[in-house]
Amino acid sequence: MARTNSVSARPSSTLRQRVYEQLRSAIEQGRLRAGTRLPPSREHASSLGVSRNTVLWAVQRLQAEGYIEARVGDGTYVSQAAAAATAAPAPGLVAPPRGLSRRGQLIAETAARWRPPHVAARAFRIGAPEVATFPFALWDRLARQATPRQRSAGAQYLDPAGEPALREAIALWLWASRGIRCDAAQVVVCSGSQQGIDLIARLLLDVGDEVLVEDPGYPGIRASLLGHGALARPVDMDADGMRIDDAATRWPAARMAVVTPTHQFPTGVGMGLARRQALLQWARAQDAWVVEDDYDGEFQYGSAAQRVPALCSLPGSERVLYVGTFSKTLHPGLRLGFVVVPPALVEAFAMARAITDRHAPGDAQAVLARFIAEGHLLRHLRQMRELYQARQQVLINALADATEGAVHLLPSDRGMHLLYEASPGTDDEGPSRKALDAGVMLAPLSRYTLQSPRKGWLLGYAGFDAAELAGAARIVGPLLPR
Amino acid sequence: MARTNSVSARPSSTLRQRVYEQLRSAIEQGRLRAGTRLPPSREHASSLGVSRNTVLWAVQRLQAEGYIEARVGDGTYVSQAAAAATAAPAPGLVAPPRGLSRRGQLIAETAARWRPPHVAARAFRIGAPEVATFPFALWDRLARQATPRQRSAGAQYLDPAGEPALREAIALWLWASRGIRCDAAQVVVCSGSQQGIDLIARLLLDVGDEVLVEDPGYPGIRASLLGHGALARPVDMDADGMRIDDAATRWPAARMAVVTPTHQFPTGVGMGLARRQALLQWARAQDAWVVEDDYDGEFQYGSAAQRVPALCSLPGSERVLYVGTFSKTLHPGLRLGFVVVPPALVEAFAMARAITDRHAPGDAQAVLARFIAEGHLLRHLRQMRELYQARQQVLINALADATEGAVHLLPSDRGMHLLYEASPGTDDEGPSRKALDAGVMLAPLSRYTLQSPRKGWLLGYAGFDAAELAGAARIVGPLLPR
Repeated sequence: MARTNSVSARPSSTLRQRVYEQLRSAIEQGRLRAGTRLPPSREHASSLGVSRNTVLWAVQRLQAEGYIEARVGDGTYVSQAAAAATAAPAPGLVAPPRGLSRRGQLIAETAARWRPPHVAARAFRIGAPEVATFPFALWDRLARQATPRQRSAGAQYLDPAGEPALREAIALWLWASRGIRCDAAQVVVCSGSQQGIDLIARLLLDVGDEVLVEDPGYPGIRASLLGHGALARPVDMDADGMRIDDAATRWPAARMAVVTPTHQFPTGVGMGLARRQALLQWARAQDAWVVEDDYDGEFQYGSAAQRVPALCSLPGSERVLYVGTFSKTLHPGLRLGFVVVPPALVEAFAMARAITDRHAPGDAQAVLARFIAEGHLLRHLRQMRELYQARQQVLINALADATEGAVHLLPSDRGMHLLYEASPGTDDEGPSRKALDAGVMLAPLSRYTLQSPRKGWLLGYAGFDAAELAGAARIVGPLLPR
Repeated sequence: MARTNSVSARPSSTLRQRVYEQLRSAIEQGRLRAGTRLPPSREHASSLGVSRNTVLWAVQRLQAEGYIEARVGDGTYVSQAAAAATAAPAPGLVAPPRGLSRRGQLIAETAARWRPPHVAARAFRIGAPEVATFPFALWDRLARQATPRQRSAGAQYLDPAGEPALREAIALWLWASRGIRCDAAQVVVCSGSQQGIDLIARLLLDVGDEVLVEDPGYPGIRASLLGHGALARPVDMDADGMRIDDAATRWPAARMAVVTPTHQFPTGVGMGLARRQALLQWARAQDAWVVEDDYDGEFQYGSAAQRVPALCSLPGSERVLYVGTFSKTLHPGLRLGFVVVPPALVEAFAMARAITDRHAPGDAQAVLARFIAEGHLLRHLRQMRELYQARQQVLINALADATEGAVHLLPSDRGMHLLYEASPGTDDEGPSRKALDAGVMLAPLSRYTLQSPRKGWLLGYAGFDAAELAGAARIVGPLLPR
């Protein structure tokens, strides 16, 4: 590690800082694995040729940061959590280049865990909405409706929290569609849900803070947390969602939980009301934050009355931050999303956005505000709900056909993908590699796990027509276990 | 400080961590001022009711981070640098809300130092380009030229480093216009120069790292650095730009310098070649990075042969990162800019962008690529250079007229604003407040300083027509000292 060696050359770093960084880097890079017992401090010091105090300082700091845990009367160990949060790099990882800061290395290394593809979406890519029939012409017409004065107004430096018309439109929409009562002033516009998470981590977490995440869960969130030096603590799921009861016992220091209560990503479980209340109760008791990532909450296929409202709409949800995105309801290339934050935090979020990248583009915000206010979002979503529900059935039938009925996916009343789960011992990477060789994207469930032994495959259907779904099913069908 | 008090309730924080955080927070908030001598550790410990080791640990950590400096045989003092970097909050500052992390507080507090306005630009706002005559119709026509296939391709999740066509267009442009030879693969598209600085700070700086900044200089950069826990070290300017010789002696631990060599912001000085070479030499010797913020480098009004190329175009500039923006050449509402980075760092920048906000919007990138490739940027800049040069003369004449020749601004062969400097003892805030009351934006130079005693006013002319410039000059003229 070039960087570790160069540390000693920096005038401000001390010997113990160097020992600390070497130990931390060894844990982060998997050279010191979870459960490894550290040598007694006296031996450790003598092996490094430093004083015992130097080692003690480093070990105590790592303990405060959660990398190491002391077991009473039994020495110090690399913690399970640190190792889980910083799992061994994938084989493809190249050493980060010289010159990155320690934090920069951490970010570069997240590439080993989450490297989002940016090729054109193909079946069965998950999270890809229908874009081929997106109403671009209508969108462009709305753009041209702006008066020259409005157009130049949108070409200036704008409010970092978002354009007033858009924040107003989003607040009204959330009340009508997701049951959330909030003021437009609480809506902070951001660049997709990824920036929402990023701003939250910047403002509410310090290095070493612990965050409960769902296991399996979304790697993009874990990568963001890791990039900020936070520790992602995996929590198991049952039929009601994240097991907050277990988590509260196992990770008593956690300061935040990130959840997908409407349609757990990627397993598809909905969080029951009792569990939601337990989660809110935990947040109050711990003075912790709950981040509700409602990534596909708009895609519920029952009648409006049957739709599950957001966690954020419940009484006692003062410590919930709601993250929404237009990447699924419209398209990912738009890069618009938002966070609903408690009134006392709005200014801080605006400031964080201002120093991060100032604000969202002016004309996209103006067009989206009109798109929502004039009812086009409602119409578009009605069409997409109908389309996606039909495509789900096409996928189920196509896979049954391709396997002569042996593989039958369970239908769901919501979402944009289905899970075909396999037994824990299954190698789910193998079939995914074979599918990719044949041109089909088939995400293995294990790519989304931290400690969970769950295996299976995720099949996205929203963005693909019947012919593409059927073609991909013919390729994937023979690869799946019966 | 609600947050400081709540620290003790967190299981992972120790007593000494708490002492450390309280001291640091006292320095950051100006309660412990620069040059304050800390009490001897024994007395300090007894006054806090903790052990001497606890105090020593906290003090040593603060010393490693640059907040405190030991003077041999004379105890420990709050460092000048820490106080300069974290100047006392402005009177308007409200206490950051409970629940922010320590880092979040730091970000919230930057609002006291830099709160970018987002009202419609009025004379003499600096950095505001002409937008009323921007070719929006042409822009929209280019958007409509996309085939349906191209349109849906831009609506997907895209390469975090930017669309290939745009990176290619920018690389060619930089060679032709700024003398920079780089590969398209080195161009990382970002959301204006603010995000460029943010990504650089994320990847190349750790908490406590020192960064040389120009004094006076751009507060948006200092706010970004502070938000990342870096320490901005002010460096004086002379007629050749940042005094890197002085800086190297005064801040030997600095790991980065951020400069505006083409047209220093806001004083307008150009960095001479000898100084440029000294800066590059410093970077090599220190293994440090130089960030070249070329915010208005395209606005040079002499013939093409007379234009000063970018610092990044010089031999030996391997440690320079070039930050460019379309906020001045096109308009701020577009939110597109870029960083040219060494090849070895491209992957890390792409990953940092992916976890921050994924990527820039697809259609804006596609239209901008066509706008550059089809020669529209060149034409637009030619027109704007002619317009801005004429407006500069209008401003000079208008202010001379309004003061019967008493105030004569010195013309400049580049830029979008002029500086009217006053003697160091002048109160430059007073006239600015009076101007604002009368509807004119007149930035006082002192708003851009850290330790520099320089005073004066900045008058932006680029975005305003002759009538507006004349009207504002009539208001401002009588307020300025002769």
